[in-house]
Amino acid sequence: MKKNLLLSLFFINSVALFAQTKDEQVFKEIYRSALTNSKCYSWLDHLSNDIGSRLSGSIGAEKAVQYTKQQMETLGFDKVYLQEVMVPHWVRGEKEIAYIQDNKTKIKVPICALGGSVATSKNGLTAEVIEIHSLEELKTFGVDKIKGKIVFYNRAMDNGAIESFDAYSGAVDQRYAGAKEASKMGAVGTIVRSMNLRLDDFPHTGGQSYGDIPKSQYIPAAAISTNGAELLSKTLKNNPNLKFYFKQSCEQLEDALSYNVVGEIKGTEHPENIMVVGGHLDSWDLADGSHDDGAGVVQSMEVMNIFKNINYKPKNTLRVVLFMNEENGTRGGKKYQELSLANKENHIFALESDEGGFSPRGFSLECDDANYNKILGWKNVFEPYLIHSFVKGHSGSDIEALTSTTIVKAGLKPDSQRYFDYHHAANDKFDAIDKRELELGAGTMAGLLYMIDQNGIERQNP
Amino acid sequence: MKKNLLLSLFFINSVALFAQTKDEQVFKEIYRSALTNSKCYSWLDHLSNDIGSRLSGSIGAEKAVQYTKQQMETLGFDKVYLQEVMVPHWVRGEKEIAYIQDNKTKIKVPICALGGSVATSKNGLTAEVIEIHSLEELKTFGVDKIKGKIVFYNRAMDNGAIESFDAYSGAVDQRYAGAKEASKMGAVGTIVRSMNLRLDDFPHTGGQSYGDIPKSQYIPAAAISTNGAELLSKTLKNNPNLKFYFKQSCEQLEDALSYNVVGEIKGTEHPENIMVVGGHLDSWDLADGSHDDGAGVVQSMEVMNIFKNINYKPKNTLRVVLFMNEENGTRGGKKYQELSLANKENHIFALESDEGGFSPRGFSLECDDANYNKILGWKNVFEPYLIHSFVKGHSGSDIEALTSTTIVKAGLKPDSQRYFDYHHAANDKFDAIDKRELELGAGTMAGLLYMIDQNGIERQNP
Repeated sequence: MKKNLLLSLFFINSVALFAQTKDEQVFKEIYRSALTNSKCYSWLDHLSNDIGSRLSGSIGAEKAVQYTKQQMETLGFDKVYLQEVMVPHWVRGEKEIAYIQDNKTKIKVPICALGGSVATSKNGLTAEVIEIHSLEELKTFGVDKIKGKIVFYNRAMDNGAIESFDAYSGAVDQRYAGAKEASKMGAVGTIVRSMNLRLDDFPHTGGQSYGDIPKSQYIPAAAISTNGAELLSKTLKNNPNLKFYFKQSCEQLEDALSYNVVGEIKGTEHPENIMVVGGHLDSWDLADGSHDDGAGVVQSMEVMNIFKNINYKPKNTLRVVLFMNEENGTRGGKKYQELSLANKENHIFALESDEGGFSPRGFSLECDDANYNKILGWKNVFEPYLIHSFVKGHSGSDIEALTSTTIVKAGLKPDSQRYFDYHHAANDKFDAIDKRELELGAGTMAGLLYMIDQNGIERQNP
Repeated sequence: MKKNLLLSLFFINSVALFAQTKDEQVFKEIYRSALTNSKCYSWLDHLSNDIGSRLSGSIGAEKAVQYTKQQMETLGFDKVYLQEVMVPHWVRGEKEIAYIQDNKTKIKVPICALGGSVATSKNGLTAEVIEIHSLEELKTFGVDKIKGKIVFYNRAMDNGAIESFDAYSGAVDQRYAGAKEASKMGAVGTIVRSMNLRLDDFPHTGGQSYGDIPKSQYIPAAAISTNGAELLSKTLKNNPNLKFYFKQSCEQLEDALSYNVVGEIKGTEHPENIMVVGGHLDSWDLADGSHDDGAGVVQSMEVMNIFKNINYKPKNTLRVVLFMNEENGTRGGKKYQELSLANKENHIFALESDEGGFSPRGFSLECDDANYNKILGWKNVFEPYLIHSFVKGHSGSDIEALTSTTIVKAGLKPDSQRYFDYHHAANDKFDAIDKRELELGAGTMAGLLYMIDQNGIERQNP
């Protein structure tokens, strides 16, 4: 009995050891392929430098759909196809103009309209400014003090936060809901300090929503660069009666037809189980969107390229999904889930990369404890590749709709320090991408998909 | 008995818990100070943009000594002083010129002399080229094939390596010893592929040594950009008889007087125990050396600024040491050790930052197992700050001489992926620095110094 127990233990240990050694070997191949034989950097070069910005409904977005579909067709998928989705179509129009009118001095400052904002009148908007630091503070002011003014939201992102996304979460309500709330108090426009931890001259756009206020109450909303915000604040202290002028001609057009791009390879053992990996193909319009989210798109495609290079055939069905319209509607993600439900599909895993093409540090995991602990058990396979961070948290906006009790979801966590230097601004360009950092991210994604594919997920609550 | 044991355990746990809570609280203060109240970024701005390159013996190096001494004098040290050290004084002279002479076509390529190299003759050097991939391969060629030729070392850094420093270690022998070995075989010059993982147009300089060969046999040695190396290799394949021309006018002058800059604050409890933190003040001459090692210099100074800001008085003596001449002689590090021995000083800890101002990932530790395990026990205090990597390995060149059986040495390990994009090249400039990444590194250094100061080191082999 004792001997048998020892033999059993020996056998179990050998199996575990063998599995570990095999995983380690596959990881070596995955990362070597990512770093020495990848296509993601040149794909991103094309997306960024040849196609450019890809706001939903734009020609760039359409070109990106065609280009990535064509490239995906070379990667050995069983099929590559498009999913139709109607997307919001907002256009910026002419470059915005703004200045501080301090008595007789006009000081030009860099602004940009927020996504979804209405235009000013043709000649622009001039009004007094009231500086406010939170939506709560706004409410304390009372209609009398706000009416007829431009509300200037100037609460900075907290540089003391360790993860830049925490600083973003702590400030972005001003951008998203600032115009709606200010309008309710009678404001005629809003200017929000850019979501940027640095002091520089780039205004950062991004989504904003008027919520359920009547269209007649929509007011123009713009972002000002952080340096511009500092200057406006300082100038206001000296002259509370200064006026601010801005002009923007943005417009919400009719919804447009666009697409998610999907590549699919059937699983060799469990074709009914689907694993998704993706990023979003649309970007804001001020730059190429190389980090947000060209990086996630090409990394997701690279996962398939890596599997092809190392000749790995997934046991479960693998889909690479390039979602449309994350930035101003997440219609692509919602459409994907809608079709998945209609087709009664069974997703076991979804992974998104949408935090920039920086050095990967780990994953943010949305799953139950059983699966979280299972994944924690793989840390030693990842650590030689400097992947240390396995935390519970939000996975990704495009896979947010993809919920069920059985799915494990994950977001790639790259180093976050530089992300908001570029996010939604005119400098989110290809030259801000480091090839090796981008490639390591793709390898890390392939690594997690491989581990999920090999080991399955726990189904405690089927 | 049992009750007493439980009580004792309770007491021990309470002490441990209290210590943990106190350390956690201090770490919060350290990092908040680093990210919201630091001077390191503006110091580096001055070092890089106002002073510029700081090669040993140059005016830039002298200005940097004066500037950092002056700044250190504002930080609350008990004393700030200079340590005299004679340093090599090599000058580049005019910008180098090089071209491939492919039959009648001249193709210009970017090169730079390696540090310590001799000049070509005034009119330059023209010779046939032999491409070689290792010092071992060189020896297999025989003198007949090498004599009178320019040896072109073209083994690329391995992009498959996960840590870029491993790729560097695997290729840098070509740069360091290539000219010496080629000269022994009768070569008239050497061109080495730049130590750079990217393909671009920057030649990367760096130290090389003729070792013990007679001066009469010194041959000119230069680095070529990675794109230039690819082109030369390709052109050679088509035309093995092509000629290569290069001209450089560099020169080794007499040794010059320079200085280490030292700031010291006496320990409140163990003034006889010294903890050193430092980086090197000299840089190569092609750029500002913002990453190598302006970053390490200002981070080391920032450690003292953080302690001042949070009002932390070290129990052990703390020295911030800005070493001179790491790049081509490490004379500063050697001089520091020499004086330390002469003064019978007792160093317990030394920490260097010399791997760039990128996001900190952890530490490379040079110590015995007892101290290594002790430091591993602090991981949970560091992990909330995304510091995960505690490995055994090389600490830093400037503290290399500082050896004894009782000292613990550490090197800050920042993310290494981008380091060789800039290392020793004309693009190692201030705009390649991210403020938050630099500051997080300084906070991480202060964190480790605080833990060593609080907990001491193990002395198993006194």
